Amino acid sequence: MGNEYGCHNRFDYSDDAMRAFQEWCRERYGTIDAVNDAWGANFWSQRMTDFSQIIPPRFIGDGNFMNPGKLLDFKRFSSDALKAFYEAERDALAEITPDMPLTTNFMVSASNSVMNYDDWGDVVDFVSNDHYFTPGEAHLDEMAYAASLTDGIARKNPWWLMENSTSAVNWRPINYRKEPGQMIRDAMVHVAMGADAVGFFQWRQSRAGAEKFHSSMVPLAGEDSQVFRDVCTLGRDLDALADAGLLGSRVERAKVAVVFDYESQWATEHTATPTQQVRHWTEPLDWFRALLDVGVTADVVPVRGEWDAYDVVVLPSVYLLSEADSQRLRDYVQGGGKVIVTYATGISDERDHIWLGGFPGSIRDVMGVRVEEFAPLGDDFPGTKNEVSLSNGTTAHDWIDVITSVADGADVIATYDDDPWSGLDGVPAIVANRFGEGRSVYVGCRLGRDGLAASLPEVLDALGVADSDSGSGDAKVLRVVREGADGTRFAFLFNRTRGKVTVPVDGEPLLTSMASVVGDGDTAEITPNGFVVTRSVCAD
Amino acid sequence: MGNEYGCHNRFDYSDDAMRAFQEWCRERYGTIDAVNDAWGANFWSQRMTDFSQIIPPRFIGDGNFMNPGKLLDFKRFSSDALKAFYEAERDALAEITPDMPLTTNFMVSASNSVMNYDDWGDVVDFVSNDHYFTPGEAHLDEMAYAASLTDGIARKNPWWLMENSTSAVNWRPINYRKEPGQMIRDAMVHVAMGADAVGFFQWRQSRAGAEKFHSSMVPLAGEDSQVFRDVCTLGRDLDALADAGLLGSRVERAKVAVVFDYESQWATEHTATPTQQVRHWTEPLDWFRALLDVGVTADVVPVRGEWDAYDVVVLPSVYLLSEADSQRLRDYVQGGGKVIVTYATGISDERDHIWLGGFPGSIRDVMGVRVEEFAPLGDDFPGTKNEVSLSNGTTAHDWIDVITSVADGADVIATYDDDPWSGLDGVPAIVANRFGEGRSVYVGCRLGRDGLAASLPEVLDALGVADSDSGSGDAKVLRVVREGADGTRFAFLFNRTRGKVTVPVDGEPLLTSMASVVGDGDTAEITPNGFVVTRSVCAD
Amino acid sequence: MGNEYGCHNRFDYSDDAMRAFQEWCRERYGTIDAVNDAWGANFWSQRMTDFSQIIPPRFIGDGNFMNPGKLLDFKRFSSDALKAFYEAERDALAEITPDMPLTTNFMVSASNSVMNYDDWGDVVDFVSNDHYFTPGEAHLDEMAYAASLTDGIARKNPWWLMENSTSAVNWRPINYRKEPGQMIRDAMVHVAMGADAVGFFQWRQSRAGAEKFHSSMVPLAGEDSQVFRDVCTLGRDLDALADAGLLGSRVERAKVAVVFDYESQWATEHTATPTQQVRHWTEPLDWFRALLDVGVTADVVPVRGEWDAYDVVVLPSVYLLSEADSQRLRDYVQGGGKVIVTYATGISDERDHIWLGGFPGSIRDVMGVRVEEFAPLGDDFPGTKNEVSLSNGTTAHDWIDVITSVADGADVIATYDDDPWSGLDGVPAIVANRFGEGRSVYVGCRLGRDGLAASLPEVLDALGVADSDSGSGDAKVLRVVREGADGTRFAFLFNRTRGKVTVPVDGEPLLTSMASVVGDGDTAEITPNGFVVTRSVCAD
Repeated sequence: MGNEYGCHNRFDYSDDAMRAFQEWCRERYGTIDAVNDAWGANFWSQRMTDFSQIIPPRFIGDGNFMNPGKLLDFKRFSSDALKAFYEAERDALAEITPDMPLTTNFMVSASNSVMNYDDWGDVVDFVSNDHYFTPGEAHLDEMAYAASLTDGIARKNPWWLMENSTSAVNWRPINYRKEPGQMIRDAMVHVAMGADAVGFFQWRQSRAGAEKFHSSMVPLAGEDSQVFRDVCTLGRDLDALADAGLLGSRVERAKVAVVFDYESQWATEHTATPTQQVRHWTEPLDWFRALLDVGVTADVVPVRGEWDAYDVVVLPSVYLLSEADSQRLRDYVQGGGKVIVTYATGISDERDHIWLGGFPGSIRDVMGVRVEEFAPLGDDFPGTKNEVSLSNGTTAHDWIDVITSVADGADVIATYDDDPWSGLDGVPAIVANRFGEGRSVYVGCRLGRDGLAASLPEVLDALGVADSDSGSGDAKVLRVVREGADGTRFAFLFNRTRGKVTVPVDGEPLLTSMASVVGDGDTAEITPNGFVVTRSVCAD
Repeated sequence: MGNEYGCHNRFDYSDDAMRAFQEWCRERYGTIDAVNDAWGANFWSQRMTDFSQIIPPRFIGDGNFMNPGKLLDFKRFSSDALKAFYEAERDALAEITPDMPLTTNFMVSASNSVMNYDDWGDVVDFVSNDHYFTPGEAHLDEMAYAASLTDGIARKNPWWLMENSTSAVNWRPINYRKEPGQMIRDAMVHVAMGADAVGFFQWRQSRAGAEKFHSSMVPLAGEDSQVFRDVCTLGRDLDALADAGLLGSRVERAKVAVVFDYESQWATEHTATPTQQVRHWTEPLDWFRALLDVGVTADVVPVRGEWDAYDVVVLPSVYLLSEADSQRLRDYVQGGGKVIVTYATGISDERDHIWLGGFPGSIRDVMGVRVEEFAPLGDDFPGTKNEVSLSNGTTAHDWIDVITSVADGADVIATYDDDPWSGLDGVPAIVANRFGEGRSVYVGCRLGRDGLAASLPEVLDALGVADSDSGSGDAKVLRVVREGADGTRFAFLFNRTRGKVTVPVDGEPLLTSMASVVGDGDTAEITPNGFVVTRSVCAD
Repeated sequence: MGNEYGCHNRFDYSDDAMRAFQEWCRERYGTIDAVNDAWGANFWSQRMTDFSQIIPPRFIGDGNFMNPGKLLDFKRFSSDALKAFYEAERDALAEITPDMPLTTNFMVSASNSVMNYDDWGDVVDFVSNDHYFTPGEAHLDEMAYAASLTDGIARKNPWWLMENSTSAVNWRPINYRKEPGQMIRDAMVHVAMGADAVGFFQWRQSRAGAEKFHSSMVPLAGEDSQVFRDVCTLGRDLDALADAGLLGSRVERAKVAVVFDYESQWATEHTATPTQQVRHWTEPLDWFRALLDVGVTADVVPVRGEWDAYDVVVLPSVYLLSEADSQRLRDYVQGGGKVIVTYATGISDERDHIWLGGFPGSIRDVMGVRVEEFAPLGDDFPGTKNEVSLSNGTTAHDWIDVITSVADGADVIATYDDDPWSGLDGVPAIVANRFGEGRSVYVGCRLGRDGLAASLPEVLDALGVADSDSGSGDAKVLRVVREGADGTRFAFLFNRTRGKVTVPVDGEPLLTSMASVVGDGDTAEITPNGFVVTRSVCAD
């Protein structure tokens, strides 16, 4: 079975691939005119009269001027072509070992979308993922985000962490090691988020070759090392969890879903957009983290997933919204759902044809706003500035929607404070609306994690939800629960800070690392990089 | 007719182009030895014995080491080859529609020189230009500069603004929108500078394809939008100006000419120069803006144009000066002309052969200075600094000429204050001289817009001219006048600041935008991005 | 004879080169299995079964994943192939002019290792070097470092400075000129370090062609110029030194050797390393300068050179240490030698196979430390920081060794002060050890020039050596001595500061530049960029 499909061979510009892409287009669109229509080929005289005229989006000197519809479809084709390759390998193996479950290692993280992994989730017997940590302060949160998205792709079925690192990788310009405790803690975050297995690359660190500086279970320094001792400890910890009945349990559904969409990410990678500083994936991680900052652990859910089963759903720069998805959102809110939608959501349909008449085109009625144009912010020319203040004390960066009208009955929660001549002063920034039985909030700019966290209490209040419906209720702790079929609940608590935190312990302590249960067993003190796992049985 | 010739297809390195380049060289130089001589081919054994040995300047691993003479000629050839292509298209059309004037859209701006547009000016029936605004604080000034250069290329015949944008473009990394008022104001700046027509790309914004995020007259949001309403207002404004007799009028000649030279720009793009931080075009815009900052609106004039018809002419880093141009300058000053010449002017002749004996080689007598070597400044190595103070309170950056002698009778207006061991302390920085009936000032360093503005009063005084001979006399306002054949004068006043300015109104107010005429009609209050147009009839 | 071999043609990826590389591998390794073993070809299924399967390390999309063993060998091959080319040219010339010594211009500097010049030293009749100054504050020190390394390559036989510049070069983005005095001073630094001849590129500055802005002996401004007058002065100065008997004298051996290794530099250029911020050559120059900062002039010695003839030897990030070199170091210290070894030394053997069991693998016993893993520092992700304090008041950057144990009897000279959760707080940073009759100090992090200078007094004390055994004993002055066969000593003193310094004069003043001998002739006052040369006869 191949390894990390698409990581180093995502695109194929050969003539073979060209013919396969032509065939893919024929299957998707049926006629060459449908392709012309999808790609807006009338513009710039790009009309084709036969499928044989379709070439891959080869370099033409300036990425700005590639056809965005074709480029989006070429990414879809490339994911599909490699998926077909996986399926061929899988089917060959399945004949030989019909009883073995088959999978391949995805690469789900907050900053990777080479394949549409949500689509691949359908063709593996169980989902597995490779995850390598993000250095610095985002380490824990990004890992939880990526693991939650993996869990979303797995539809809350248990999955495997196929690869992660015991410490440093070797492929970044600077390869930070893991701090004491982080190796075990990191593995446990994936477990908390639904992993039933934890694997590492590599077992014994190679002495030579391209990956000799990649950490391993048995490091270059040998078995007499903290890394190896921690690996042994982790093995015992995982045994203990298995003994306690964790395997097969599922991550408790959160109250809030943050939606991620591979195709929106692909479409926003085109360079001829309002600003290259905003691509779909810049926003969902900020929302996930800002929610943690107000004590809420959200689920990250693929756009095809069951986000409409949640109390609150966030659509963060979900650039592509098809007619069907727009209607699904409308139905959800109509029926009582609560939705937060941000700038750069619902700009185009699935062919990247822009919804006309003002943004967010297909769901203006739901949101109660109309945006006439975008005001990207930056500081790449003298006299430009990448910040505009909001009346709620936060600051917008990178993107502002120029909201020119607001529906009757909608509430403007915040406006911009700017230079009186800029055209932004007093423009609505955050608008709450009611639609059908539900409610919506539109956030018309990029506020970043801090700005979102500061705005969230008021936003959640406008939606009529308290700000601690799920998660720890405490910004200092990441809390996730796995539920067994028998009602057993495994609660995982991770310290998100650089200091010690004291947390209530809800059940029988099963595991601690860099933590100690204190007092009468009702609270635990967790150091940075530490965690506690407890077990309880639901009384219901 | 082709669109924006050279924008995406400036250079052709194919074998066909190679043969055409060989032919071009044969026509320019006659013999291969003349080519060898022009390109300094003795150096590095580059001598050729036949035209067939000439290859295009293809990539050789390091641009530093391309032959600069060949590279300059290849740029000339490329402009000529595309011009010949335009002429072929034009001639074919002219047979069919002999009564239609024919043109093509140039791309004149302060930072584009893919073609020698001044040379192309001869082959169009009327000049037309595409101009896209520079974001940030240079927006208005750069536009006025580019429009003035277009007017210079048109030899003050009316021209067309073929393309500009109603708001954001889509091809920058960050695509800033226009502020309220800017769309109409921008169009009017081009009109003030000689445009008789204003066009936009694009009419109706495309829903799909590579330019769907480029603004338009009818935006994605539809006709119910500020952009569309402003487009309609602009149409009415242009009608009003036409009714008032503006069409066909010409921009009043300024007192000061700032010279721009496409070939000097091309030559200074070679990387093996004293510093890559200085190329010809970095300086003319600074001078144009600094002159505005002391209330003087200059004309930007191509080096082949009539700069010797002005009271004062500025040669800002005009790197190439042929023998003939050197003599023309000498004659101009000899006969009473007043000239400001900066560092990096007159370094080489038209073949990029350096004038020997000290800089500025061919016009040392006129300027009364002798420069022994250059002292580029930078901060790209620890312990380097990109600033040296001048005795007049300004600061030099990027380039200092080491002036080692000054003619008898010349006045040193400013010197450098530096580390006593650097060899720059006390060296003359700005030197005024008298030559024949005229006067000259040499500015031996890069002062930037602010440093030039601060130095200009003294410089103009040394030349014996007041500092407000043309323009508004007020740094806060850009003032341009178009003169009709019947003596009608159309004065355009634009606010250059971020606050309101009050200006005297000289004639009958024809148009205002973001402005209001107050009091008894003698003054107007203009907000940022606003302007006033008045009409008067010359009593003379 | 070719010019600057390898400067622009280091690598050849053609099929011809492929065959030559295959042959080179056959000669080095004998069997393809030995190649497989050397390159760790089992990893990633890279095993070959025939020499014809060896291809050059052509671009594969990501340099991280090239085989590091192959890449290292390809650099060795490329140096050898060009050396063989030189030898062929040399042999042809030697037949014609058997009495002429033959050489070629190396490019030895602190930041160039395209060829293994130490290896080339064996095939020239005398060493010659091209050196172009580093702009900014490192100018003098880097030049002295490079010249000392050249002297080390020449094994202290006199050598030639074949090329340097009178002032600016033309191939940097910003081409700084030399300050007054620097041209003569620079030439004299090379002379002090062993050059018996000083050459310049170029004689008369070319008017045209790619190097027309490169300074020369006769500049574009002509003979009436400071540059030309200084060239004449230098000629007279060199004559005076020749008359005084300098030619053929040798640079006095210093007490301290700083080791440089071309192959360690090549190996650390691979991108999949702990951090790309640390490559071998970043460290030796820092040590050379830090030693100057405590008044010690060190010799820079190639790893194959006689570093074990010195009192103290510094191995600064000498990444590759073969079994033989490890043993050589062990024997040296065992026998009473004093060694300073830094982080990133002795990581791998000559095949880039990592020494197992903890770092520095093959010399842990000598150093008395064991490093379990590396902790690279950086600031390229939010929340990362590229600095950790040491208990001795200095600061580590870029790389920290996690020292987990220290030998009995070893002294921890400094530890880290860090976040209590980082795993670095309290870890030993600098450790002194005794081994056999000798002593060692291990510096487990990158301290930079300033940190090293601040730590050196204590380090030298731990080694049992005073801090001014050689050199000037004065951080403000670079002092070098050349010794004639007859006991004549030529002392060169150069001002390292930006102010005047007063120095004792030890002998008869032969030359001064930007300096004056004052008082009774026992002291001299040297301005920045100045120097004094004296002659004395050794009484011994």
